[in-house]
Amino acid sequence: MSDGYSIDEMEVGQSASMSKTVTEADIVMFAGVTGDFNPAHIDAEYAAASMFKERIAHGMLSAGFISATIAMKLPGPGTIYLGQQLKFKAPVLINDTVKTVVTIKSIDEKRKIVVLDTTCSVAGKTVLAGEATTMKP
Amino acid sequence: MSDGYSIDEMEVGQSASMSKTVTEADIVMFAGVTGDFNPAHIDAEYAAASMFKERIAHGMLSAGFISATIAMKLPGPGTIYLGQQLKFKAPVLINDTVKTVVTIKSIDEKRKIVVLDTTCSVAGKTVLAGEATTMKP
Amino acid sequence: MSDGYSIDEMEVGQSASMSKTVTEADIVMFAGVTGDFNPAHIDAEYAAASMFKERIAHGMLSAGFISATIAMKLPGPGTIYLGQQLKFKAPVLINDTVKTVVTIKSIDEKRKIVVLDTTCSVAGKTVLAGEATTMKP
Amino acid sequence: MSDGYSIDEMEVGQSASMSKTVTEADIVMFAGVTGDFNPAHIDAEYAAASMFKERIAHGMLSAGFISATIAMKLPGPGTIYLGQQLKFKAPVLINDTVKTVVTIKSIDEKRKIVVLDTTCSVAGKTVLAGEATTMKP
Repeated sequence: MSDGYSIDEMEVGQSASMSKTVTEADIVMFAGVTGDFNPAHIDAEYAAASMFKERIAHGMLSAGFISATIAMKLPGPGTIYLGQQLKFKAPVLINDTVKTVVTIKSIDEKRKIVVLDTTCSVAGKTVLAGEATTMKP
Repeated sequence: MSDGYSIDEMEVGQSASMSKTVTEADIVMFAGVTGDFNPAHIDAEYAAASMFKERIAHGMLSAGFISATIAMKLPGPGTIYLGQQLKFKAPVLINDTVKTVVTIKSIDEKRKIVVLDTTCSVAGKTVLAGEATTMKP
Repeated sequence: MSDGYSIDEMEVGQSASMSKTVTEADIVMFAGVTGDFNPAHIDAEYAAASMFKERIAHGMLSAGFISATIAMKLPGPGTIYLGQQLKFKAPVLINDTVKTVVTIKSIDEKRKIVVLDTTCSVAGKTVLAGEATTMKP
Repeated sequence: MSDGYSIDEMEVGQSASMSKTVTEADIVMFAGVTGDFNPAHIDAEYAAASMFKERIAHGMLSAGFISATIAMKLPGPGTIYLGQQLKFKAPVLINDTVKTVVTIKSIDEKRKIVVLDTTCSVAGKTVLAGEATTMKP
């Protein structure tokens, strides 16, 4: 696997994206790995009586898509993840296709720091907004 | 499952924790669900030549433990996750036991907002620090 | 588990089969294990705009069913898999039941080599055709 | 996700690769999805008495890495997989890091057909050799 973009090959405004349809199986496995058995995610009866009317995906699953886009595409393999801010704006439902876009906001060439705007959306509506701080050695 | 703590049953300083040993299988499954095949996580040869000398867990896996502790313990079932700040301080290696502690920093009874300090540590060393903003209706 | 058929218990024309309904969870897990996040498999919106109109299973999942039929049934446990030719003829959709049939084409008793015709079909239509070369010590 | 390389952006000799360490969890999940419970893969006692002395990965798991490299890298997203020849040369053991390389052998611009040499190796030794036939519309 290549080492992705080097610090001088990137520029502010550059972006990358990936999309994935969230399935029931993804939620089951995410719950199993993290231990997050919030009934909103795994109890269909509880969820039916909740404000969202059905089971929703873990917010951190979408955060995982941000991590994936950073690691696989921009800045790409070799990136060190320093921090992430997340604002959960709306739920992701089973069968929603989540589009994750990361866009470079600033580059500090000396310290090798790249800050990216990170957004997950479903059908054009933002479900998760935030900012990633990364280092690309 | 109970509906966790109501807003007037919680107080600043209150905390809850969970611990989980991170296995190779957790990393494999987390990669599979999120699509984050960063070689730092799934390529032992690449990882051996990296600054960490071996494969490391996804940072968002530890973030998932924070989400789990919030959802399962404090504020507990029924909590709505509004936001999370994450600072990745050190890597989590295969077989590390991650202890996640969430501690209430502030409570806004009117708006039902509970802010928590969130920390993941391995053998007493912080690997992930941050702050969660939640609502408990 | 038995050691399957020995070389002198098999004959040309002998066949075995297995059938499995392909679920969304199978596709999610196959993508997760192999790293094949081809949008044709995991992005329902992309797939809707594609020539197949919906998500399709990985061709290698059906190839895995051939491997399973060889390993479990004919020649059965103890078989060494030497090679496989695969022609992907048509897509497998979620909820399709794939029937895999392996039929012995030739037996070389001296070299212990068994060649099998291998076919996967959905509702009588071939989706994957090919030939397996195996050794049964 | 981009649509990978178009037919006129590729040339004979061009190659792409990915690497993944094969874990016990990968083998367990691959067995579960395909139904290939060959004792060579899932029965450590049987495997200890076999010619390979320990459990080996499914050959079709490595074939899945070829599919992944074709789908994700070269020719990349949008590729239609027409066929694959596979020769299993040596076993893949748990903890082996499999490097998959695909290299373009021929391009038929009129029919949009791209044929690739496909090789999986462990520590420089070929474990799986073969040839893929793809179409890039």
